[in-house]
Amino acid sequence: MARQITLDQAEAIVSACKQEALAVGQPMNIAVVDDGGNLVAFAAMDDTKLIGVDIAQKKALTAVYFQMDTKDLVPLVQPGAALYGIEATTGGRLVVFPGGVLLRKADGTVAGGVGASAGTVDEDDQVARAGAAAFSG
Amino acid sequence: MARQITLDQAEAIVSACKQEALAVGQPMNIAVVDDGGNLVAFAAMDDTKLIGVDIAQKKALTAVYFQMDTKDLVPLVQPGAALYGIEATTGGRLVVFPGGVLLRKADGTVAGGVGASAGTVDEDDQVARAGAAAFSG
Amino acid sequence: MARQITLDQAEAIVSACKQEALAVGQPMNIAVVDDGGNLVAFAAMDDTKLIGVDIAQKKALTAVYFQMDTKDLVPLVQPGAALYGIEATTGGRLVVFPGGVLLRKADGTVAGGVGASAGTVDEDDQVARAGAAAFSG
Amino acid sequence: MARQITLDQAEAIVSACKQEALAVGQPMNIAVVDDGGNLVAFAAMDDTKLIGVDIAQKKALTAVYFQMDTKDLVPLVQPGAALYGIEATTGGRLVVFPGGVLLRKADGTVAGGVGASAGTVDEDDQVARAGAAAFSG
Repeated sequence: MARQITLDQAEAIVSACKQEALAVGQPMNIAVVDDGGNLVAFAAMDDTKLIGVDIAQKKALTAVYFQMDTKDLVPLVQPGAALYGIEATTGGRLVVFPGGVLLRKADGTVAGGVGASAGTVDEDDQVARAGAAAFSG
Repeated sequence: MARQITLDQAEAIVSACKQEALAVGQPMNIAVVDDGGNLVAFAAMDDTKLIGVDIAQKKALTAVYFQMDTKDLVPLVQPGAALYGIEATTGGRLVVFPGGVLLRKADGTVAGGVGASAGTVDEDDQVARAGAAAFSG
Repeated sequence: MARQITLDQAEAIVSACKQEALAVGQPMNIAVVDDGGNLVAFAAMDDTKLIGVDIAQKKALTAVYFQMDTKDLVPLVQPGAALYGIEATTGGRLVVFPGGVLLRKADGTVAGGVGASAGTVDEDDQVARAGAAAFSG
Repeated sequence: MARQITLDQAEAIVSACKQEALAVGQPMNIAVVDDGGNLVAFAAMDDTKLIGVDIAQKKALTAVYFQMDTKDLVPLVQPGAALYGIEATTGGRLVVFPGGVLLRKADGTVAGGVGASAGTVDEDDQVARAGAAAFSG
């Protein structure tokens, strides 16, 4: 397995997410997956919500599966849009709202994804984005 | 397991739900889960509907997972809204319509959730709410 | 749905199980299902183990599905025996060790099942049996 | 959610596991769950095996569900033994071999569980145990 992200890098991403979540004032669940969609690092902050344990991981996974941020899936999955209904596919593993961000290496290669969950979708997206900004693979 | 709700408290909630369901005239399925989302007490009233066995439990679980009543999820999951599509996530364990109510202790700590199912969503919500009103953790 | 057991009867069974569990000194998870295998009543005693939430229900279900106590399944599922491997069937819903007891009405009709879980299998069986003894449908 | 373990404590456990895994020479997947079985912290070490992502989490969960180390389940689940067949129950969420260790607070309360996976079961158990030793809740 030639993982495109190290545990050290994943933990640095989680750490940056935690800092941003503290700034936002909303304890989060934070997940980093590799380019195969497999979990590398996870942290549930104290006093977060249980819903995010699962969804943070699935946001990160979805970003990798689509090679795009989950925020950009939103218009595509609405009634009448091209991917309407896709969230019901793949055994309930996809998340189609903001908070999952794709991680790319400097050369453009997909390195993995980061997901955050427990706040509003805008807060989640902001926290995941702060994690991605801390990555330079 | 340091559960934030006792079986006695859970059974008192179920009992209050049953009384309200009798008043409403619709036999219900009633579930109480703890703050980890695990089932503590359940009752299926005579002549209720089987659909509610599963859904009452998932309503209670959803309230705990989101730390909010499931009624308040309704506007958030509509097409175009922030959490559109979320019910397809988390392995079909979430319910995004009324009837699940969060239980909080006097100090604000999440103690668990109560869910009711078999009637209209308004009836379910009314019954779950009557159960929550009987709780003072 | 012509359920062969009422909620009152199911709750009396749960109550008898609770008393026996207190006598045994092991807080239990206790479930009663109807003759269709659907949950009618459930109680998780304070300080029980989470493993039993699911397994108590599945013990009761298994008793109904096989129309026999789960204790009597034990010799049948061993390597080389007639039903070897059956526990892997039906999506993991079956339990093949003691603690699930079939409930029959006075006329022999199957009324449902009761399951107990959290102690040794002998304790579980003893508690479920005490519940069944309290039933005269 | 009144979690019995903090993220700081969970991360200290993961850190101790990582050190032990380095000493053993086998990169591991390491998971810490709370007393409700919900994931708190996870780390997949570089060059570990993918099988352990899932199994490390389930080992930690199993320890909490049974309130015992998964190592102690081994004799109980063999053909002819009391819990034979249990691993097929509960939707495939249980692990019945070594590598999951229960975490208890100083007062005996269950705080959660730690699981390690990727090496031999003895290596996994050794690594999980090193994590548990670093916990004093």
